[in-house]
Amino acid sequence: MTDNPTILAPGSTIGILGGGQLGRMLALSAARLGLKSHIYCPDTQSPAFDVTPFKTVAGYDDVEALKAFAAQVDVVTYEFENVPAATAEVLAGLKPLRPGANALAISQDRLAEKSFLSSKNIPVAPYRAVHGLDDLKAAIGELGLPAVLKSTRLGYDGKGQRVLRAPEDAEAAFAELKPHPLVLEGFVPFEKEISVVVARGLDGTVRAFDAAENVHRDHILFTSTVPGDIAPGVAKHAAMLAKVIVVALDYVGVLGVEFFVVGGERPSLLVNEIAPRVHNSGHWTEAVCLTDQFEQHIRAIAGWPLGDPQRMADVVMQNLIGDEVDQVPNGIDGDTQPHLYGKAESRPGRKMGHINKIVRG
Amino acid sequence: MTDNPTILAPGSTIGILGGGQLGRMLALSAARLGLKSHIYCPDTQSPAFDVTPFKTVAGYDDVEALKAFAAQVDVVTYEFENVPAATAEVLAGLKPLRPGANALAISQDRLAEKSFLSSKNIPVAPYRAVHGLDDLKAAIGELGLPAVLKSTRLGYDGKGQRVLRAPEDAEAAFAELKPHPLVLEGFVPFEKEISVVVARGLDGTVRAFDAAENVHRDHILFTSTVPGDIAPGVAKHAAMLAKVIVVALDYVGVLGVEFFVVGGERPSLLVNEIAPRVHNSGHWTEAVCLTDQFEQHIRAIAGWPLGDPQRMADVVMQNLIGDEVDQVPNGIDGDTQPHLYGKAESRPGRKMGHINKIVRG
Repeated sequence: MTDNPTILAPGSTIGILGGGQLGRMLALSAARLGLKSHIYCPDTQSPAFDVTPFKTVAGYDDVEALKAFAAQVDVVTYEFENVPAATAEVLAGLKPLRPGANALAISQDRLAEKSFLSSKNIPVAPYRAVHGLDDLKAAIGELGLPAVLKSTRLGYDGKGQRVLRAPEDAEAAFAELKPHPLVLEGFVPFEKEISVVVARGLDGTVRAFDAAENVHRDHILFTSTVPGDIAPGVAKHAAMLAKVIVVALDYVGVLGVEFFVVGGERPSLLVNEIAPRVHNSGHWTEAVCLTDQFEQHIRAIAGWPLGDPQRMADVVMQNLIGDEVDQVPNGIDGDTQPHLYGKAESRPGRKMGHINKIVRG
Repeated sequence: MTDNPTILAPGSTIGILGGGQLGRMLALSAARLGLKSHIYCPDTQSPAFDVTPFKTVAGYDDVEALKAFAAQVDVVTYEFENVPAATAEVLAGLKPLRPGANALAISQDRLAEKSFLSSKNIPVAPYRAVHGLDDLKAAIGELGLPAVLKSTRLGYDGKGQRVLRAPEDAEAAFAELKPHPLVLEGFVPFEKEISVVVARGLDGTVRAFDAAENVHRDHILFTSTVPGDIAPGVAKHAAMLAKVIVVALDYVGVLGVEFFVVGGERPSLLVNEIAPRVHNSGHWTEAVCLTDQFEQHIRAIAGWPLGDPQRMADVVMQNLIGDEVDQVPNGIDGDTQPHLYGKAESRPGRKMGHINKIVRG
């Protein structure tokens, strides 16, 4: 099906693949725009099921369920980049899939992503494809050590990667990481990580939220600070690169772009990865932007004009991981906006919610 | 049941009487706090049914349905002040009802409301109870004309009232308005209408949002502007009066207070009416406050600490009545936040949504 530029009328239904917190927050934003949401997720305990009466519990490979889902919605989007290609193909043949299948294909494969970015002259860390152990040894010779060996698929929150510090680490790491091929990334002496959440509308309009400075803890995002300690020129450059990416992808929706800031007299930026969806490092937008990333994504995929991403206050977003969620409600300050995901059980490392705290001068 | 100061844990369920836009917006805010919502409404087409899987479709006089509803929720609140006393009594006997039954009893009867306010030295327009036509004639003699004859119950958006301009208007107006008794209000030469949305937590903390200047059109709220053209002393006085009211009611939740500003060298305030719920003139809080009126109400009734009502920007809220909703999505500016209520059918005079527009200096 050609993705014709249809604008969804209020009362239309957004189909969302994935029932986690991002799907839940998308559904809440859709509701504020007078749109219904239908959540598709195999997990019967999906948090997003609590915010809409419309759901399908089925596997992503269940073609009949996918067809029935498509028949009940007006556009399909997703909360995670690892939507199987076959699933995307079925759905895109029935209803507009936004963002499109090419954004999924590129972002769910590290090699494809780096290759795409490089082809658009977007700087990335030096890398080599690793199909076999010989490739890995050659890549170590070229990129030096330390370096990071990563799986090309399904990696998130630090999963699916090993730091190689000595040549003898190579064999075990290669054996442990699956599936092959892998990718070896050269060591980047970055000073900090920042991210930009950018949106592109169906009409081609592009708007970026302010850059956030991100701090990770145990490989999971801990805080996003806006404005962070980011030189204005660097923030501007990051926004420009993010815009180049969504235009190059002919993208519709919100996209998260993570950068390394490499220090020096003239700091430079490398793109670490892109995520074709709303992004954890954009949760601060909820508290201080007239249009937050969730509404912006819904506006884009509904064919509506994009909203104003301008920021009204300084803010720090902090994830609540595992039992950190227990500080809500009693441990939160008055000038803090908590957002809990409604997950029944808190487990170590599980994202249970986040808080946005206004920073007043 | 005694309303003991239990704090609801995340994952608890808020029971909401009424499935209109206010119930819907309350449910959306509850979700962001990790709370579930169960909507109770006799109307099968309730907009709030689209934002939660938990609903009861039954009459407010259906005691068995009320009991089953109470068994599935942890606290009960409502989106409209005309909850029947018998309904409130059944529910309050089973689960905490917040705000309490006394707030309902007072606010659903104009005479009780004016009598309560007067007893607390809160200024109101001069009024007289009208049980019979003789009362009305005597009241006209005392208050003069023009004056407004109002039903004591179930009036909203200008329904249930008649302006008396000449003594001969009295008889027809008295016959038309039901149920009796009625109330005659003396003419108040007010300059403008303002309102304050105030909250009181279970712990007794009181926080008020900034005063809004309200403009009505065809007896329905058209715009709320914050800050309006309101002298700082007047705004402060309005907030103080609103706080006195919630304390006097031993109130838990959000309460809307409408005022007339009577001009002169030292402008004075009269309370027009109070509403024991989130209020249309507080919808602006959604766009520019860290904690909006809906989250504030949920925090209060859940026994959570109140949030920060501070305003981050100047704003104008405009209701979308009837087919005005058709301007969404194409007629809205980028710096406008639309909020649609998901009503299937737009009818003249029906509130279909609102827009919040940021005013930049």
